[in-house]
Amino acid sequence: MAHINFNNDLPGIRGPMAYCPETEKPLNSLAEVLLRDNDNTLTRGERELIATYTSYLNDCFFCQNVHGAIAGYYLGCDINKMDAIKNDPSVSADVSPKMKTLLAIAQSVQQGGKSVTEQQIKAAKNEGATDTEIHDSVLIAAAFCMFNRYVDGLATWAPKDRQIYIDRAPQRALEGYRGSIFK
Amino acid sequence: MAHINFNNDLPGIRGPMAYCPETEKPLNSLAEVLLRDNDNTLTRGERELIATYTSYLNDCFFCQNVHGAIAGYYLGCDINKMDAIKNDPSVSADVSPKMKTLLAIAQSVQQGGKSVTEQQIKAAKNEGATDTEIHDSVLIAAAFCMFNRYVDGLATWAPKDRQIYIDRAPQRALEGYRGSIFK
Repeated sequence: MAHINFNNDLPGIRGPMAYCPETEKPLNSLAEVLLRDNDNTLTRGERELIATYTSYLNDCFFCQNVHGAIAGYYLGCDINKMDAIKNDPSVSADVSPKMKTLLAIAQSVQQGGKSVTEQQIKAAKNEGATDTEIHDSVLIAAAFCMFNRYVDGLATWAPKDRQIYIDRAPQRALEGYRGSIFK
Repeated sequence: MAHINFNNDLPGIRGPMAYCPETEKPLNSLAEVLLRDNDNTLTRGERELIATYTSYLNDCFFCQNVHGAIAGYYLGCDINKMDAIKNDPSVSADVSPKMKTLLAIAQSVQQGGKSVTEQQIKAAKNEGATDTEIHDSVLIAAAFCMFNRYVDGLATWAPKDRQIYIDRAPQRALEGYRGSIFK
């Protein structure tokens, strides 16, 4: 049972978001801009992968499955491949050299902002990462350190069947995050 | 030096926010709603105190001084008293019994969402905390786990003189967060 009464039985972040629409709006706007809109060369699949990996490191079942399924949908990557990437992206043949460096930065951000090293930034730039890509990677990882804590800090419930998340991914990818909880 | 070139020399979070106005908007909206607008019985000073304490636990110099000064301004609490509260709010005579339980929840959220216990929630409710106050406390702590990582994950600079933050607090309290970086 959740720690507070949301007056709804929606799963994961949708429970507290529907409970508090005042904060839902900026939270969904942030997700929309960061994961879908922001104009640069990181694809939606790559952005969702950073979100998935951070959520995995934070052990947030709901977020890592929602975003893992969307990342898999964009990247053409099934659940087994996605689990292998989460387990260690640095050795995955399915992750580009540039994305490996950005996921390493995300891993440090998950531990704490000061864990990001000059060396990690240099490695990313050496693989062609732009300043905007590094900015977005840091903020996506930071934002999921918030979303994951919001979901688990209030003890929300989540469907256990991982296929449910996979089945919903195409629709979620179509609709995006802005206002999606009201549909 | 910051990890990327922000094309400005603004301190702390203001550097990356001015660099990326697309994400600045939802980030500042979230701060405005969470720390100032949301309609319940937690005061602005108490909300800023949760932000300050979380930023202290994350060792984020810029955020703990910006928000510590604003909290001090609202609560009529000087820098020494604020430092003592941050060090251990559970023993401070300046923190109400209800706020002690909410800061304990914030401390758990900082460690990770799953660290929040049933017992902590019960203790807060026993001290009169409402569901909305618990919701907001969890989300403020979660949000500062993001803001702190954004500030330090990009290696932003911050004025070292703590008096600067104190001097600016009344103006910041007057202006709020919505769009404040452009002034």
